[in-house]
Amino acid sequence: MKYEKLSKSELQSELDSVIKAYDEKKALGLKINMARGCPCSEQLDLSRGMLTDDLLSDSVISKERIDIRNYGCPQGLLELRELFAPLLDTKPENMIVGGSSSLNLMYNIVSDAMLFGFPESNKPWGKYDKIKFICPCPGYDRHFAICEALGIEMIPVRMLHDGPDMDEVERLVSSDETVKGMWCVPKYSNPLGITFDRSVVKRIASLSPAAKDFKVFWDNAYCIHDLYDEGDSLSNIFPEAEKAGNANMVLMFASTAKVTFPGGGVSFIVASDDNISYIKKRLSYEIICFDKINQMRHVRFFKTPERVLEQMKKHASIIRPKFELVYRTFANELGERGIAEWTEPNGGYFISLDVMPGTAQRTWALASEAGVTLTNVGATFPYRNDPDNKNIRIAPTYVSLDQLERALEVLCLCARRAALEKLISNN
Amino acid sequence: MKYEKLSKSELQSELDSVIKAYDEKKALGLKINMARGCPCSEQLDLSRGMLTDDLLSDSVISKERIDIRNYGCPQGLLELRELFAPLLDTKPENMIVGGSSSLNLMYNIVSDAMLFGFPESNKPWGKYDKIKFICPCPGYDRHFAICEALGIEMIPVRMLHDGPDMDEVERLVSSDETVKGMWCVPKYSNPLGITFDRSVVKRIASLSPAAKDFKVFWDNAYCIHDLYDEGDSLSNIFPEAEKAGNANMVLMFASTAKVTFPGGGVSFIVASDDNISYIKKRLSYEIICFDKINQMRHVRFFKTPERVLEQMKKHASIIRPKFELVYRTFANELGERGIAEWTEPNGGYFISLDVMPGTAQRTWALASEAGVTLTNVGATFPYRNDPDNKNIRIAPTYVSLDQLERALEVLCLCARRAALEKLISNN
Repeated sequence: MKYEKLSKSELQSELDSVIKAYDEKKALGLKINMARGCPCSEQLDLSRGMLTDDLLSDSVISKERIDIRNYGCPQGLLELRELFAPLLDTKPENMIVGGSSSLNLMYNIVSDAMLFGFPESNKPWGKYDKIKFICPCPGYDRHFAICEALGIEMIPVRMLHDGPDMDEVERLVSSDETVKGMWCVPKYSNPLGITFDRSVVKRIASLSPAAKDFKVFWDNAYCIHDLYDEGDSLSNIFPEAEKAGNANMVLMFASTAKVTFPGGGVSFIVASDDNISYIKKRLSYEIICFDKINQMRHVRFFKTPERVLEQMKKHASIIRPKFELVYRTFANELGERGIAEWTEPNGGYFISLDVMPGTAQRTWALASEAGVTLTNVGATFPYRNDPDNKNIRIAPTYVSLDQLERALEVLCLCARRAALEKLISNN
Repeated sequence: MKYEKLSKSELQSELDSVIKAYDEKKALGLKINMARGCPCSEQLDLSRGMLTDDLLSDSVISKERIDIRNYGCPQGLLELRELFAPLLDTKPENMIVGGSSSLNLMYNIVSDAMLFGFPESNKPWGKYDKIKFICPCPGYDRHFAICEALGIEMIPVRMLHDGPDMDEVERLVSSDETVKGMWCVPKYSNPLGITFDRSVVKRIASLSPAAKDFKVFWDNAYCIHDLYDEGDSLSNIFPEAEKAGNANMVLMFASTAKVTFPGGGVSFIVASDDNISYIKKRLSYEIICFDKINQMRHVRFFKTPERVLEQMKKHASIIRPKFELVYRTFANELGERGIAEWTEPNGGYFISLDVMPGTAQRTWALASEAGVTLTNVGATFPYRNDPDNKNIRIAPTYVSLDQLERALEVLCLCARRAALEKLISNN
C-alpha cells in the first residue's frame, strides 16, 4: 500500500492509526540511544583477553630490542606493523602506528598542513584566504567537524552507488588550486555503507589536481569489517596512485577501534615513503612516542593476521542479525509504503536511511520524544545541512537486538507519521 | 689543586697524564648512552603489576557508569582524576586526562593557539608576523623544539638559583604584546633541578602581561619526583594567579611518564574552569576520547594517592645513589680542580654541569669518541645555542651504577682535558 496512492481521507485515517500506535510506544518510556557507531558489549567481550590474559609477563622487549615500557620507537613496534600490514595491503615500512585514535592522526595532519603545508606546498594551507575540501556526502560528521574547526570550506559532492560523483570531483580538483583535500571512507562508507568501485578508486588515484599539494584522506576505518564471509572488495589505491605519479597524494588511516576497543585500540597511518618520512619528522616535535605497551598487547593477543580476521568474523556474527533486522523492518514498514529508501551494506557500522524528502527532522524529533535517540539529522552533511531533509544515519550495533527491534518500531512509526503529515498538508 | 694556579709546564704535564688516562678508557670500547632522561629498567619493574596483574577482569565499568572499553568520557575517568588531584594540588573538575604524552598535550595547545588563539585573543597567534615565548635557560629541549617547529621566537632568560630572572621576565612580558608564552618546569627544572621559590611563583602568577592572551606553560613534570623524604616544596600557582586576576593565564601539565611508564602512562592538563571548558571544546574536534583502559589500569594499580607516593619513594631509592655518585665524582674530579660547577638537585631527572666556559663542545666530542653519549651541547638552550659553550645536561637515571661510574670517569677526564687544552692555548 503505497502512501502516494492513498486518498486524503485514507491518509488521514492511516495517520490516526499511526498516531495511536506511536502514542502507545511513547507511553513505554523507552530510552534507546542509536546515535553513534559504537560496538556493543558482547563485541567488546571478544577482546577480553587483552584486559585479563597475561600477555606481557613473558617479555617486554620487542623484536627490535626495544623495551616497550620506555621511550623510543616513534614509528611503532615492527611486529605490530607486520601484523597489520597484510590486512592494510601495505608494507610495515609504509606504516606509522599512532595512539588510540585515527581521528586524532587525521586532525593533526590537517592542522599541521594549515600551519606548515606539505613538502610540495607553495605555502601553508592557513596562509590562503580560503582552502576547500571535497566532502562526499552523506559522509562522516567528524571529518566535516575537522574542516569546520580549521575553517576549511567544504564542497559537498554526491555519493553515487559506486562512490563519489567522480565527474564532479575531477572538475573541482583540476580547476581550483585552493581545493586541497578530499575525505573518503572508501569501504563501507559512513553512513552509506557502500564500497568504492575499482574504477572510482582508479579515477581518484589518477586525479590531476590543480594544487600540487592536494591530498586524499583515505579513512579506511572499515577495511576488514565485513558482515559476510564474502565481503566487498576495495582495490588498493596506492599502486594506482603510483602509476599515475600521485604516490604522495594519498594518506590512508585505519584503527582497531572496532577490532578491539574504541578509544583503547591502536591507529595507523599508511603512506608513501616520502610521506612517512615527512610525518615522522613532524611527529618528532609533537610527541616522544606512542604507547608501545598497548601495541604489544595487540601483537600478543592476535599473534597473526588470520586471528585478527577470525575476530572480525565473530564481530560479524554478533552484529549481522542487527543489520538484517533493520533491512527486514525497513522493507516491511517503509518500503511497502513507498516512503523511504535505504542502503543494505555488507559491512561497516551504518545504514543510511532516506525518509520522504522534507521529513527527516520531523521523524528525528518524533523518535526523540518517544525515547529513541538517532544521529542528528544533517550530521551526515557539511555544515549539518541536509538539503533534502531526508537522511538519517542508522547505527544498529550498540543496542541489543531486542532494543533495536523496539527502536525500529518507533522509528518506522515516526517516519510514517511524518510522511503522512506531509502528504496531507501538501494535498 | 686548582688548574688556574698551575704553570704552563704543570698544565702540560697534567694534560699528558689526562690524555694517557683518557686513551686507556677509550680502549675499553665503552658504549654508554646518557643522553635522555629515561628511567632504568629496575624503575620500570616497579609498575610490573600494571602489565601482569589482573586489574580489569573485575569490572570494566567506571564509577560514572561508563564502559571503559567503549567511546566516551573525553575528560578522563573521574576516579583517575580523583586519584591524582591531591598529588597535583587541584580538583578533579580542573583536570583533563590525555593520552600517554603530556608533551603532546602541550604541542596541541600551542599549535591550536597558532590557529585559533585563546578565547581572550585578538587574533590567532599565527596571524602575527612574529610571536615570542620566554624560555628560561638552560631549559628543556623539547619545549624549545615546539617553538622552533611552530616558528615562535624564543627569548632566552637566565635561570637564577630560585627560578627565572623575574626582573627580566616582568620587563619582557609587560612591554611587548607579542610575548605570548613562557615555558616553566617549576619543580626540579630540566636540566638544573632547581625548584622555583615561593616568591618567584608569586611573581609569575602576578605578571601583568601586555598580551591579554599570555599563557604560562607550567610543565610540572617532576611534581612528585623527590629523591629524598624531604623534597623541595613548590607553592601552588593557581590560587596566586586567581588572586592576581590571572586565573586563565596558567596551564599546568603533568604525566605518569616517570611514575609508571614513559610513553605508556597517562597525562594531565590542570587549568581554570574557563580553560578546561575551552580545551574540552577544542579536543572535541580532535579526538573522540583518550584511552580509558590505561586510565583504569592506573586507578586499579595505585588505588590511593599514598600508594603513588610510596612508588615514588621506591623510584627515589633506585636513582638517588646515581645522583649522589655524580655529586661525589664531580666534587672529587672537577670541583677540586676548579674547572666546573654543577647543581645538586633533590629530585627530578637531571643534573646541570657547567664545565669551563668554551669547553663543553670539546668535552662532549671527547666523551663521544670514548663511547659515552651525552645530551648534545646546546640542547638546553633555544636554537641549540649555549652562548658560553659550557652547559652539559647529565641524565644519570637510565644507566646502571656501574656504567654510570665508568661514564663519569670518562666525562671528568674529558672535561679536564678540554679545560687543560684551553688553558694551555690561552697562555
